[in-house]
Amino acid sequence: MKNSTTRRSAIMALAAAATSTTQRIASAEPKQTPATTAPDSQFAEHEILMLVFPQFTALDLIGPQHVFALLGPSYRTRLVWKNKDVLQSDTGIPIQPTMTFDECPRTPSIIFVPGGTDGTVAAIEDPDVRRFLSDVGSKANYVTSVCTGSLILGAAGLLKGYKATSHWLALRHLERFGATPVSERVVQDRNRITGAGVTAGIDFALTLASQLQNDDYAKSIQLMMEYDPKPPFDSGNPKAAPAASVQMLEAMTVPFHADVESAASRVKLQ
Amino acid sequence: MKNSTTRRSAIMALAAAATSTTQRIASAEPKQTPATTAPDSQFAEHEILMLVFPQFTALDLIGPQHVFALLGPSYRTRLVWKNKDVLQSDTGIPIQPTMTFDECPRTPSIIFVPGGTDGTVAAIEDPDVRRFLSDVGSKANYVTSVCTGSLILGAAGLLKGYKATSHWLALRHLERFGATPVSERVVQDRNRITGAGVTAGIDFALTLASQLQNDDYAKSIQLMMEYDPKPPFDSGNPKAAPAASVQMLEAMTVPFHADVESAASRVKLQ
Repeated sequence: MKNSTTRRSAIMALAAAATSTTQRIASAEPKQTPATTAPDSQFAEHEILMLVFPQFTALDLIGPQHVFALLGPSYRTRLVWKNKDVLQSDTGIPIQPTMTFDECPRTPSIIFVPGGTDGTVAAIEDPDVRRFLSDVGSKANYVTSVCTGSLILGAAGLLKGYKATSHWLALRHLERFGATPVSERVVQDRNRITGAGVTAGIDFALTLASQLQNDDYAKSIQLMMEYDPKPPFDSGNPKAAPAASVQMLEAMTVPFHADVESAASRVKLQ
Repeated sequence: MKNSTTRRSAIMALAAAATSTTQRIASAEPKQTPATTAPDSQFAEHEILMLVFPQFTALDLIGPQHVFALLGPSYRTRLVWKNKDVLQSDTGIPIQPTMTFDECPRTPSIIFVPGGTDGTVAAIEDPDVRRFLSDVGSKANYVTSVCTGSLILGAAGLLKGYKATSHWLALRHLERFGATPVSERVVQDRNRITGAGVTAGIDFALTLASQLQNDDYAKSIQLMMEYDPKPPFDSGNPKAAPAASVQMLEAMTVPFHADVESAASRVKLQ
């Protein structure tokens, strides 16, 4: 009886979420006029702040955002940046932020940071980004990232003394920010949840969805996004992939490692 | 020796792709001034035209686009629509098209169509969309889709006599457009390749990448995007998911089915 009730409420909430998404989009146009500060009444009960920045990796963010958008009408996702100018992802996707740092609620439910390469280095070095993340991150219920986004969280002082993960190529850098690197797809340490490279964002988000709602709810989201992965090859981690692929990607990221080292040495952790 | 050479050339191409992506993004700003027709010299050797439209599902497109962006410097992805106004995805992501229908090369390497719900119905009913797809689709090397994007391809007359797939909830509608529905994650029939719902786009794109380049190349992309999926639940298809989830999603999509039926009845296949 209890299971049945839980399941029914999950169903209702997901259905409501779908309706709400459509309505929200339908009424989104007039809201595009810039406002200095969004009034409190515009905030949902649970605000999910997702950082975007020039040359971020779009797939790091779009996987989790798809999951979060189905969490129900009391949740709302925002793409946050310094301004609302269209910015380019590292694969050339032009995306427009939906909320500025100044407009953000200071006590969000979730703060989320995607990764990148050059974009990650620039974000690590940016005092405005670190200040914003440090501020909202200290009050958020969950502090989260995918891929090299964990290095940005680290630079903001949010992973000091926490276990965390990152893209397999970037894992080594977490120690520079006082975190303990763990080579797993999704790593949770208290309210810090970090995902590994790029596609790990989907596994991360479903894990978080089950905690925010419940397992049945997360399973419904998984079914809706038909997440029944069948990779054509077994090459998604450095142990399974051809040695030549691993060596090539390691060689390609030599400049990135140097840039992160250099940026990290200039960032003074709080 | 031969394997080693093949592998090396894949490595070079992927490395070049990464460099090219960074350079392209760095030099993207000045190109934003609208041009009526892009001169031929602006086209890459292999143009990948990815349709976007109001209320499309961003994850359907961003997964494949991430893979395609790593195909090498001779490939270039475009987000194509009637104009370059920022449009909203069905989960609320504002994305800006990068090329108009009029600017597109008429003989692309690949035409790709993502899905949606209301957005898919509107695209099916839009004669401009059908005309554009029918035109470039008849000349493209590959005609492809993810999720309900296959219904849009179908409405453009591009799947008549072909096997195809779609989101599990939408598969039934393919017959209306003269296609044979196949319940598989990725379905290829000659040069038509269709993916199932949302996340199937990643499996679809890696499959296509291996055909455009080779298996080793696709494996390197898979490693770069750390596609080593570990879903927290086994609920990604209607056979594995809880019966209540399946029933709920079926119930939620009753209006969508009616809309597709109605749209299909008004579209006259060529």
